[in-house]
Amino acid sequence: MLIRLASAEDRAEIWSIVEPVIRAGETYTLDREMSEDDALAYWLGADKETFVAEENGAILGTYYMRPNQAGAGRHVCNCGFMTRGSAAGRGVARRMCEHSLEHARSRGYRAMQFNFVVSANERAVRLWRSSGFQIVGRLPLAFHHPTRGYVDAFVMYRRL
Amino acid sequence: MLIRLASAEDRAEIWSIVEPVIRAGETYTLDREMSEDDALAYWLGADKETFVAEENGAILGTYYMRPNQAGAGRHVCNCGFMTRGSAAGRGVARRMCEHSLEHARSRGYRAMQFNFVVSANERAVRLWRSSGFQIVGRLPLAFHHPTRGYVDAFVMYRRL
Repeated sequence: MLIRLASAEDRAEIWSIVEPVIRAGETYTLDREMSEDDALAYWLGADKETFVAEENGAILGTYYMRPNQAGAGRHVCNCGFMTRGSAAGRGVARRMCEHSLEHARSRGYRAMQFNFVVSANERAVRLWRSSGFQIVGRLPLAFHHPTRGYVDAFVMYRRL
Repeated sequence: MLIRLASAEDRAEIWSIVEPVIRAGETYTLDREMSEDDALAYWLGADKETFVAEENGAILGTYYMRPNQAGAGRHVCNCGFMTRGSAAGRGVARRMCEHSLEHARSRGYRAMQFNFVVSANERAVRLWRSSGFQIVGRLPLAFHHPTRGYVDAFVMYRRL
């Protein structure tokens, strides 16, 4: 699996990964009706470095990295990860996370923070914990899950 | 003290409050060198409702409110507060906070979240606690304080 910077040619494949995640509305606090243009402007925004995970010419996942805050908080980065549904369970997210930790260190970041991990997204919580992240905050009922109603979200953090 | 929506005529007074806070770099994760235009574009952004606290024709403080997340997180709001240095200790921030809680309820928000309260900003932490906020998260060394070095930041939260 090759993890590389995304380019404009990857937009259609990235959208094919991002769209079902946004439409499902179970894991990200993004408007479920978000347009393709808005979603790609967000995921590939100028404030971010965006990567894709490629295997045999197919893109299986994508992630972005950005400073989580400006000014005196810019030494902590934030990332978002999405895996193609059909590639679930193959370790794509874990590989992207490992890549992101290494990349973040090379950029001089001192920590990585996830601002909003939906507690019901157990697979993600398990993966981030096993990747060295700790739950450092719990936001009570901060996410309106489409089938479970209001559920907590976690702030997760690890030093680099 | 009258708390009302900010208008374009308030820009100069707002900047006279915001500038020293940004330049000091002790409480907000904003670039200390931020220009007036960028700072006002941020504080008065289209994603926000911005208020001023006025007394005898002088503006003593300002705050904004916005949804803290989009989509399934938009029922939680976020606010930022700044008080004019010369008006410190007169309860301006507390009055603005009370106003914000009432306004947030009228907008249908279910909770208010502060994403990044610098732990060294003891006055703010005390004020938010006494206004019903709890520390729900601690971000280790997430803020690079200009004189104290790396210090923790808190995530604070209260239901409405």
